[in-house]
Amino acid sequence: VLALPALALANADVEKNIANPGNWAMQAGDMFNQRYSKLDQINTGNAGKMQVAWTMSTGVLRGHEGSPLVVDGMMYLHTPFPNKVFAVDLDTQKIVWKYEPKQDPAVIPQMCCDTVNRGLALADGKVFLQQADSNLVALDAKTGKLVWSVKNGDPKLGAVNTNAPHVFKDKVITGISGGEWGVRGFINAYDIKTGKQVWKAYSVGPDAEMLMDPEKTMVWTDGAMKPVGKDSSLKTWKGDQWKIGGGTTWGWYSYDKATNLMYYGTGNPSTWNPSQRPGDNKWSMTIFARDVDTGVAKWVYQMTPFDEWDFDGVNEMILADINVKGKPTKALVHFDRNGFAYTMDRVTGALLVAEKYDPTVNWATHVDMKTGRPAVVKKFSTAAAGPDVNVKGICPAALGTKDQQPASFDPNTKLFYVPTNHVCMDYEPFKVEYVAGQPFVGATLSMFPSPGSHGGMGNFISWDAGTGKIVQSKPEKFSVWSGVLNTAGGLSCYGGLEGHFKCVDAKDIKKELYKFKTPSGIIGNVFTYMHKGKQYLGVFSGIGGWAGIGMAAGLEKDSDGLGAVGGYKELNQFTELGGSLTIFTLPN
Amino acid sequence: VLALPALALANADVEKNIANPGNWAMQAGDMFNQRYSKLDQINTGNAGKMQVAWTMSTGVLRGHEGSPLVVDGMMYLHTPFPNKVFAVDLDTQKIVWKYEPKQDPAVIPQMCCDTVNRGLALADGKVFLQQADSNLVALDAKTGKLVWSVKNGDPKLGAVNTNAPHVFKDKVITGISGGEWGVRGFINAYDIKTGKQVWKAYSVGPDAEMLMDPEKTMVWTDGAMKPVGKDSSLKTWKGDQWKIGGGTTWGWYSYDKATNLMYYGTGNPSTWNPSQRPGDNKWSMTIFARDVDTGVAKWVYQMTPFDEWDFDGVNEMILADINVKGKPTKALVHFDRNGFAYTMDRVTGALLVAEKYDPTVNWATHVDMKTGRPAVVKKFSTAAAGPDVNVKGICPAALGTKDQQPASFDPNTKLFYVPTNHVCMDYEPFKVEYVAGQPFVGATLSMFPSPGSHGGMGNFISWDAGTGKIVQSKPEKFSVWSGVLNTAGGLSCYGGLEGHFKCVDAKDIKKELYKFKTPSGIIGNVFTYMHKGKQYLGVFSGIGGWAGIGMAAGLEKDSDGLGAVGGYKELNQFTELGGSLTIFTLPN
Ligand SMILES: O=C(O)c1cc(C(=O)O)c2c(n1)C(=O)C(=O)c1cc(C(=O)O)[nH]c1-2
Ligand SMILES: O=C(O)c1cc(C(=O)O)c2c(n1)C(=O)C(=O)c1cc(C(=O)O)[nH]c1-2
Repeated sequence: VLALPALALANADVEKNIANPGNWAMQAGDMFNQRYSKLDQINTGNAGKMQVAWTMSTGVLRGHEGSPLVVDGMMYLHTPFPNKVFAVDLDTQKIVWKYEPKQDPAVIPQMCCDTVNRGLALADGKVFLQQADSNLVALDAKTGKLVWSVKNGDPKLGAVNTNAPHVFKDKVITGISGGEWGVRGFINAYDIKTGKQVWKAYSVGPDAEMLMDPEKTMVWTDGAMKPVGKDSSLKTWKGDQWKIGGGTTWGWYSYDKATNLMYYGTGNPSTWNPSQRPGDNKWSMTIFARDVDTGVAKWVYQMTPFDEWDFDGVNEMILADINVKGKPTKALVHFDRNGFAYTMDRVTGALLVAEKYDPTVNWATHVDMKTGRPAVVKKFSTAAAGPDVNVKGICPAALGTKDQQPASFDPNTKLFYVPTNHVCMDYEPFKVEYVAGQPFVGATLSMFPSPGSHGGMGNFISWDAGTGKIVQSKPEKFSVWSGVLNTAGGLSCYGGLEGHFKCVDAKDIKKELYKFKTPSGIIGNVFTYMHKGKQYLGVFSGIGGWAGIGMAAGLEKDSDGLGAVGGYKELNQFTELGGSLTIFTLPN
Repeated sequence: VLALPALALANADVEKNIANPGNWAMQAGDMFNQRYSKLDQINTGNAGKMQVAWTMSTGVLRGHEGSPLVVDGMMYLHTPFPNKVFAVDLDTQKIVWKYEPKQDPAVIPQMCCDTVNRGLALADGKVFLQQADSNLVALDAKTGKLVWSVKNGDPKLGAVNTNAPHVFKDKVITGISGGEWGVRGFINAYDIKTGKQVWKAYSVGPDAEMLMDPEKTMVWTDGAMKPVGKDSSLKTWKGDQWKIGGGTTWGWYSYDKATNLMYYGTGNPSTWNPSQRPGDNKWSMTIFARDVDTGVAKWVYQMTPFDEWDFDGVNEMILADINVKGKPTKALVHFDRNGFAYTMDRVTGALLVAEKYDPTVNWATHVDMKTGRPAVVKKFSTAAAGPDVNVKGICPAALGTKDQQPASFDPNTKLFYVPTNHVCMDYEPFKVEYVAGQPFVGATLSMFPSPGSHGGMGNFISWDAGTGKIVQSKPEKFSVWSGVLNTAGGLSCYGGLEGHFKCVDAKDIKKELYKFKTPSGIIGNVFTYMHKGKQYLGVFSGIGGWAGIGMAAGLEKDSDGLGAVGGYKELNQFTELGGSLTIFTLPN
């Protein structure tokens, strides 16, 4: 009860910052993960006239995910490892302060998919950074001085971080990476003032450690929401395997004040060799709805029971109030790695729609709407084939029809704008021994563009989540690995791995209104803000991430980088490493 | 005689490429080092409307000097160590080929002033790259495949390279760095077809090794040109000291077809502790005019006999036909590190004008026009003070009133546009032992903005070389460390260490017509070209070089980086590392 005033304050601060569309106060622009801006100075009529306003190198070469934040004339930028933070005065572009953590470079090879970082959070006069070495730090937003710091995991065991911290109410919430090291995933909530741990909720294991209430935590069962029951996770693992069972939490989280629930997904069960871990491996590959104050799970939904393809379920949950099959719904929309887009009732957890958002998805024919389980095609089951058999032509590839690159929701068109991969794979599992701190992968992959299609590795699509249908699909040469922004100006903007920043017409995404070649490939997320009466759009470029791991880490063998190197080989004809920010605006 | 057809061909090729102002076929645009373009589509009337056309990261973080070359729709870019080369198709910005030499990183700490490289040469269907590890390589311009390669020096002894190779006639001419390692400087001329050495000319030592003709090599003596005489270098050194005597050749070279002479300057005598090397230390700190075919010196002129301040004489020789004191003259104009700008008769070597181009220069009162020697002010003589005495307030600092950053000549205004440093120093020499392959410096320096002036560390000036007078001087916060371009459009363009690309009116340089913040600090040279009917301007950004060594090498102590770290400390509030190219044009 003593904490209440602080709670109210911190929350009010974030809400006030978000409410002003001139700011970009959260990674997704809001708590619903909508990535929509009310700004309309730049619009379909004038977007073609945009030009670069200014640029800034970050001094770091590897993949640049996430975006800067902007609040009240100050911009806060982050970088991949070593996770520098800059505060830049928008009047002068001067660097007001810099934070340069000294992190042990030993964490670099512990990061599966490049040394990315998905950005900062800002609240309560503090900037929050989740460092790669698992330290969550709070910096004074005015000076960059360290306010508090807390260790969130053990990098020696592969528990590192790439996710952005999220501030919901009076808590800073963060996750963990390391699904390829056998790290048992969790979410941690820390007090915004002190960094003291408030609750911790594992993805797998005993009910108490998962903050699961066997009676009250609900799950879609036989066409209705039912309690999960006792030991819902333990029952689905052989012996102690859950202890090295994965289900990491490195994605984007969202929050709905009305229900006080936060939403996030869990990653793949470890190892990638399914024969070694029989069972549904709950609650890996799962959407969690948790009470922000207590951490207790309100409901869960597992997209891919017994994963055989590395289809991590961490992709963002977008909260939107839309018509689903004609009915106004408080929806949660999730574009899963497995190639299905799920529309759920976000209050109850009921499954409403589950459809493929790339027609080439072939590992399952459909999702059974009663059980909520995918109907797996035996031919593409890597468990059925068994270890040391190369299962060919699985679509999508392990990096999914979409990976971490976040989609947007446009309240005007009521559509979702989804940056997708159009990539398939061969997958050969093999037996692997768990050794603490060593990779625990157990499969050899190779990736290639979806065969019999347009030849490219990506599509930018608009999606009707109420019916589960693609509205339009714009082919792209490479996966669209950047986050999308929609604006009240009618724009939908995103970046390409080859380096082009593009804005298209949200009503007709095949209409490219603006295109600019930034210094490097784009895996960052588009953002916007207003400064001194002018609207700006911006995006990080800096090739990397899983798709760009070959260039980022200097790998050359096709099967290196967990199979991504070969598939994205051509990238080096289009771009080079290098992190920088490009800011666009209209001419004066 | 057999070589003649090839000779004629190679030369014709370069001349043809230069003659087309749509190309940027040499680092300076031409063989006269004028850095002037006949293009006028972008001009004083519309320059303010320029916008960024495209950008490209190079994937290398440290200082980016020089500029790309452009010939017939293809752009050739280089990088600092590891000296990557890219051929980029200007239609698509696709990377057509890439050359990535594997160089021993042991050369990095052997480079005094950052791992810079001043760019490529292009002739005879080949791209020439002078690698840091001293290998001069010829690449097939169409494929990037190695045609020939030759080792030019021994990096183990500190003989590394940063200079651009220069193609004059059928020769590729290159120099050497390592004045701070006691490297004895030289120029090497290689056959363009085979890489076979044609001649080699040392800066110091016996006449035969310097390709000096005691009777025919002339020098300004008592107001007239006289033969240098026998052992002109040896006589000015104590014992064998010339063998570790410096006089390196890492600057820009120029060539006049009419006289078949090439011009370049030599660097400081080693060590920086003058008491250790009594004598004039000839021919360090010297302008050389050499016959390109034989290498034999036609004339020499030493700017700073017995250097006590590290005023390397390597700055470029700009050849221009101007009025000097009212008389039409085939002039050579040289803005020396020592703060004097020299106008010479480039045919005879006669000294015509020698005046300060920064009024704060104080180490000498003037140049005696009869002897050609500076009149040193005793108070600023570090030799007079002796070792272990800190001589304070010397202007300019060791990095000179100008360093490697090349000036331009505008045939319309008949003025020179000079990027200058406005920096002074304290200099304390100390005794140092020569150890092969180890730094051989022998002085501790600190640098600071010229006192009692505008507070900044640089000026951009226009200069009348016929009278030796500053026409206009535009104060800058930092040294202007980038090369200048003038155009027929009336522009004079340059970059700032803080990252701004600027174009001013050549007729009134205080009038800024265009200004843009590039991703990083600029030490590259502005260039221009035409593609599909549109003119483009471009510049590398990427902070580094001697001025930016603190950021580039991550040094923090004020006296580190040969004294530059403290002086340029503030830079890190303005910019970050990161190499990229920014290309500008007018809107469609
Ligand atoms: O299991 C994990 O802990 C984990 C972590 C991460 C990460 O932290 O970046 C990725 C993945 N898995 C993963 O499966 C994946 O596809 C992926 C892509 C990326 C990226 O940033 O491009 N990270 C990750
Ligand atoms: O004596 C030498 O051999 C030598 C080499 C170099 C070089 O190769 O860059 C520089 C210098 N000296 C030097 O004195 C100097 O001021 C300098 C500046 C720079 C630069 O690129 O910013 N290089 C060098």
